[in-house]
Amino acid sequence: MATQGQVINCKAAVAWEATKPLSIEDVQVAPPQAGEVRIKILFTALCHTDAYTWSGKDPEGLFPCILGHEAAGIVESVGEGVTEVQPGDHVIPCYQAECRECKFCKSGKTNLCGKVRAATGVGIMMNDRKSRFSINGKPIYHFMGTSTFSQYTVVHDVSVAKIDPLAPLEKVCLLGCGVPTGLGAVWNAAKVETGSIVAVFGLGTVGLAVAEGAKTAGASRIIGVDIDSKKFDTAKNFGVTEFVNPKDHEKPIQQVIIDLTDGGVDYSFECIGNVSVMRAALECCHKGWGTSVIVGVAASGQEISTRPFQLVTGRVWKGTAFGGFKSRSQVPWLVDKYMKKVHTPFPHKILM
Amino acid sequence: MATQGQVINCKAAVAWEATKPLSIEDVQVAPPQAGEVRIKILFTALCHTDAYTWSGKDPEGLFPCILGHEAAGIVESVGEGVTEVQPGDHVIPCYQAECRECKFCKSGKTNLCGKVRAATGVGIMMNDRKSRFSINGKPIYHFMGTSTFSQYTVVHDVSVAKIDPLAPLEKVCLLGCGVPTGLGAVWNAAKVETGSIVAVFGLGTVGLAVAEGAKTAGASRIIGVDIDSKKFDTAKNFGVTEFVNPKDHEKPIQQVIIDLTDGGVDYSFECIGNVSVMRAALECCHKGWGTSVIVGVAASGQEISTRPFQLVTGRVWKGTAFGGFKSRSQVPWLVDKYMKKVHTPFPHKILM
Repeated sequence: MATQGQVINCKAAVAWEATKPLSIEDVQVAPPQAGEVRIKILFTALCHTDAYTWSGKDPEGLFPCILGHEAAGIVESVGEGVTEVQPGDHVIPCYQAECRECKFCKSGKTNLCGKVRAATGVGIMMNDRKSRFSINGKPIYHFMGTSTFSQYTVVHDVSVAKIDPLAPLEKVCLLGCGVPTGLGAVWNAAKVETGSIVAVFGLGTVGLAVAEGAKTAGASRIIGVDIDSKKFDTAKNFGVTEFVNPKDHEKPIQQVIIDLTDGGVDYSFECIGNVSVMRAALECCHKGWGTSVIVGVAASGQEISTRPFQLVTGRVWKGTAFGGFKSRSQVPWLVDKYMKKVHTPFPHKILM
Repeated sequence: MATQGQVINCKAAVAWEATKPLSIEDVQVAPPQAGEVRIKILFTALCHTDAYTWSGKDPEGLFPCILGHEAAGIVESVGEGVTEVQPGDHVIPCYQAECRECKFCKSGKTNLCGKVRAATGVGIMMNDRKSRFSINGKPIYHFMGTSTFSQYTVVHDVSVAKIDPLAPLEKVCLLGCGVPTGLGAVWNAAKVETGSIVAVFGLGTVGLAVAEGAKTAGASRIIGVDIDSKKFDTAKNFGVTEFVNPKDHEKPIQQVIIDLTDGGVDYSFECIGNVSVMRAALECCHKGWGTSVIVGVAASGQEISTRPFQLVTGRVWKGTAFGGFKSRSQVPWLVDKYMKKVHTPFPHKILM
């Protein structure tokens, strides 16, 4: 490509400071260095985590930066040593990297690759610990190692999933965050079984993906919980079978759900990021075996709490990031699944 | 037996009120009613939970009562309909019942039988909702459905494990609580694998049983944590390989352990009942997969807390009661294991 090795001038939505409206700017995107990939972003979605950092509540938030992490695009050029993708490949940038070499990747127990975290956590690239974005020489920080609110971005090669070139990028961009997060919470973290009773707190994209995952896993009841009753109609299409609005009840929502389910649900999912709701989600689980999965991201400094008796009597409290999916290995599989409209969950035994 | 169907006069240690020294009294023990078993207690141990209720901090604590729940004895007589034990059988009373019929027993997911809980939780027997203990006509409450600080006690038949008559009762009485609680926390709740790094907080009976369970499961390092360094010598005999005294460190104990283990332990166990230690036990777990099991019983009203990020990044918080063992089915198996000195954990697949 004519742009290879060159600085690219393009448009990007820059967050100059917390809470200030994003501003469309001409930015300069440097060529990818060793182990890096420059991607032409064609579609990007907006996720709550972008808004969270923008709000100033994220203690890791750095400004000015280019937000965005749920996107799809085409590789423009690659840096030295990059072998798994090449210019023209259709890709989804992955904020959760997968290097296949670190202690985490090799553990067989987690998707939380640690290889580039020390750089992506502070808004820079690992090779020279600098940003590839600038405006008239002033560096602009990366965000989550993806920065997809830009026509071009540079990411580490361990953060790029190569996908089927026939997949519609305007749709599969959602497989960069929200949808896998919800599906994976059900399939990988909770491992919901056929016949289970499930509660989903928060019916946004992630909550709807949880509902769809639970339906696919054969859940017998999927109870949607949201303070906005208008969401129920849409939620039905994703598998929610019952709707509970905490505002309609005087009792604590955990008690409402326990009463509805003869003792509590088998699995619950918090898809909001509210620590009080996280507690309710745990406490509405059935004694003896109920498992609650925290999916939402709470504001910095906030803490979850409960009586330890809740756990001693058999409830399990866990969480998940990116639904436990290994990004480079499994995002392409999710894209294939979408293309084939296959609705069976990934077999657990070969997940990790 | 000559005593069958008769009230038995015997000695018992009565807790007249919270914090008042137990008093040895002549008590009258009524005959077992339908579904009940009267046991001659030959050996009983003292567990922290007895002291907890005695301290007045247990909101369920009722006085006057006869404490004690870790014991062994011989069946004196049985009530109507009792078929699984008969006079002369050697038994261990089980505060955690197993009816094999309730939702919990049938779930295949928990040992928390619910059948007699509504009676044992309020110090009485289910049949007539009265106590079998009295002193000159004044009823004395049962405790945990066992009340083993008495020469004779009456328990529900679902709370009696029949064991090998050759087993030394003065030793296997410990299989009524502390030892299974620790072993089961490792084998059933955590499912520790070969090569795992384990931390045990609190080196009392339960903590030592956790260490032994971890050793049997093939843990590569077992880090004992206690504020009494004198416990280390004994702990070594149970498999503890390293000792950390939080008093020797300025840093929070979770950070000390993370530093010692290149990122944290695979499994941790809180065997004290201190909510701050429960937090430390969770937070010293390795990102991505570390699992912390709460075994200790905290004082009423106390709460555990942590940042939800701890769970979102892959740590799991759970707990266990009686180590997840099904009492009537598995206590006899533990006794057999002791008799044969077999040190292999129960195969997980057939545990529940």
